Amino acid sequence: MTLDTGLTVGGVGVGSDERLARIIWSLLTEPGPGAAQAWVQTHGALGALELLVAGELGQGSAAAGRLDGLDVASVLRGLARLRVRVLIPGDREWPVGLDDLDDPPYCLYVRGPADLATLRERGIALVGARAATPYGTTVARRMASDLCDRGYTVVSGAAYGIDAAAHEGALAVGGTTVAALACGLDRVYPAGHADLIGRIIGTGAVVSELPLGWAPYRQRFLLRNRLIAAATVGTVVVEAGPRSGSLNTANTADRVCRHVAMVPGPVTSQLSVGCHEWIRTRGASLVTDAADVLDLMAPLGEHAQEERRAPEVAEDAVEEFDATLWSAVPVRRGADLMTLAAASGLSATDTLAGLGRLVMSGLVERRDDRWRKVPAARRAPATVAG
Amino acid sequence: MTLDTGLTVGGVGVGSDERLARIIWSLLTEPGPGAAQAWVQTHGALGALELLVAGELGQGSAAAGRLDGLDVASVLRGLARLRVRVLIPGDREWPVGLDDLDDPPYCLYVRGPADLATLRERGIALVGARAATPYGTTVARRMASDLCDRGYTVVSGAAYGIDAAAHEGALAVGGTTVAALACGLDRVYPAGHADLIGRIIGTGAVVSELPLGWAPYRQRFLLRNRLIAAATVGTVVVEAGPRSGSLNTANTADRVCRHVAMVPGPVTSQLSVGCHEWIRTRGASLVTDAADVLDLMAPLGEHAQEERRAPEVAEDAVEEFDATLWSAVPVRRGADLMTLAAASGLSATDTLAGLGRLVMSGLVERRDDRWRKVPAARRAPATVAG
Repeated sequence: MTLDTGLTVGGVGVGSDERLARIIWSLLTEPGPGAAQAWVQTHGALGALELLVAGELGQGSAAAGRLDGLDVASVLRGLARLRVRVLIPGDREWPVGLDDLDDPPYCLYVRGPADLATLRERGIALVGARAATPYGTTVARRMASDLCDRGYTVVSGAAYGIDAAAHEGALAVGGTTVAALACGLDRVYPAGHADLIGRIIGTGAVVSELPLGWAPYRQRFLLRNRLIAAATVGTVVVEAGPRSGSLNTANTADRVCRHVAMVPGPVTSQLSVGCHEWIRTRGASLVTDAADVLDLMAPLGEHAQEERRAPEVAEDAVEEFDATLWSAVPVRRGADLMTLAAASGLSATDTLAGLGRLVMSGLVERRDDRWRKVPAARRAPATVAG
Repeated sequence: MTLDTGLTVGGVGVGSDERLARIIWSLLTEPGPGAAQAWVQTHGALGALELLVAGELGQGSAAAGRLDGLDVASVLRGLARLRVRVLIPGDREWPVGLDDLDDPPYCLYVRGPADLATLRERGIALVGARAATPYGTTVARRMASDLCDRGYTVVSGAAYGIDAAAHEGALAVGGTTVAALACGLDRVYPAGHADLIGRIIGTGAVVSELPLGWAPYRQRFLLRNRLIAAATVGTVVVEAGPRSGSLNTANTADRVCRHVAMVPGPVTSQLSVGCHEWIRTRGASLVTDAADVLDLMAPLGEHAQEERRAPEVAEDAVEEFDATLWSAVPVRRGADLMTLAAASGLSATDTLAGLGRLVMSGLVERRDDRWRKVPAARRAPATVAG
């Protein structure tokens, strides 16, 4: 519900064009936290722009200072020439995960055919050290290929090392991969990845919240990382030294409640120190391959890890009726009746009866008033259900 | 409170000698679960022996069958000759952790000067694959040396691979190491470890619940593993394939509520599959070195991991008064006021005031009605307390 503001900025009439207003904001200020972000959140992109032009906001601010030199028409021509599409919140293709950020991008510049609308369901961030070891790049490439084979999109940052291996692994199996850049989409960084980035644009997408022409600076890499973390279902870090930038991505993922997973490595490798530390002290999940990742991140019921791993044991013989209850029973610490009833959606009576059947099957054990799964190692082999 | 039973077994008067009765039970039956175990638990070693001799227990049992051929005097001479001491429950030196087993040993045969009374406080089990990689043996050896340097005793099974590396690492720094064997203490298994076992006896101890002369069988290795797990504070597995026997030790440790920790490795190594799987699905802790192990297993307050790891941040400036409260605040999911008051032992008013100070220090954040620690990565550097 925006009204035509009659506003003209940088030689172009903005009218009620929210998209154009957001493009202009991306030209006026660095992304991330700051006064401009607050203005846009408070007044909307159009409203804030109107106030800024009217001199009613941060007169001495960088944004106001940049108003004068702005040539919006030229910017739009540049975007059209490179076939860059511009997404804003509310667009069908807008990666809705970005809305969970305190400081979402004003807009997202995109090149390439991939549909970003799928990222929040099927995008998995695969990041790690630039100075990766052959072990790390091998694991990243393989994991990316396997994730793509199962229909997921691999999102990374096009950096050297793990990022490149992730993109390459996706491309190798004809999968979809998305690179978030810390510079404008007309630029190539690192320069050595011109070919890689070109191939990503060919079948996947490169994205940035920075206008064309903008260069990669340190702060912009950190801001770029938050897009990778928030757009996706979860972040997997393959190798990370104690201060790796990929841990910054993991931090954001954690903050916006995405899955955070780490690939372990030799404890003698400095490039696994960050991963191990996160598993040890930050509660990150340990993953060893794509199946582990999907076990954690795939929508409930979609990925059947059991198919691959579990031997044929009694739990295969659990009747449909008790399967939900069985899933609700914790492995380590037991849960009490009311907790299990709530988790399984059964009445207390049905829950108790079901637990009885599971205990009889040797799948669940009761201690005092709590039930827990019998560790697989102690379970009897399956008996064929009568 | 045992009375002289007037009992004679295998040519020796047992009288009221509980120790002798337990030695005799160890000669009559395999250790572990079974009828004999139940008899001894029900009637006591002396009482059960009296009933057995009187033919009132399991007439056709293996135990009864072995009564005839028993030459107890010869057994005792053998123990004296090898300077084997025999521990039973209640002895000062008895490893009290063994009492947590469903099927504790009847007695424990011991050679070597180490005092087993310390194991429940300072014994750490370090086990793993026989077919270990150079990576695994390097890590195990180093971890064992470092644990011994900090005054801990390394317990293992004298097998090839990780076990041997653990014992060697302990011996290399003049530390104490204990080997639990799956055969009688007059035997050497594996034969290639005659020298290693000799050195362990010289400064540490070898232990077994099996009488002299008994050979190592598969089942006896599994039973031996339960001693390693139960006697110690916790079990660290350094390398383990998917079905490694060391995971059997971890299972027992888990069952008797000991710490279970795993050393990660390359996800491309089959010998780390078991370790990763336990971290991923069984809640085992990931440890990378001795400091991590002690962080987990050392008595509260004894091991100051902080000394090694934490940078100087604001938390160092927390006043003594708030330190308890700070420790009680969870890292990931917040806790509410009543939970924190209960955990810190403060009144609700004092808790609220303390939380206020911690929030002001930037150490704790409040979301709705829950408080949690601010992740270290986001904390401001320490300011000197005024």
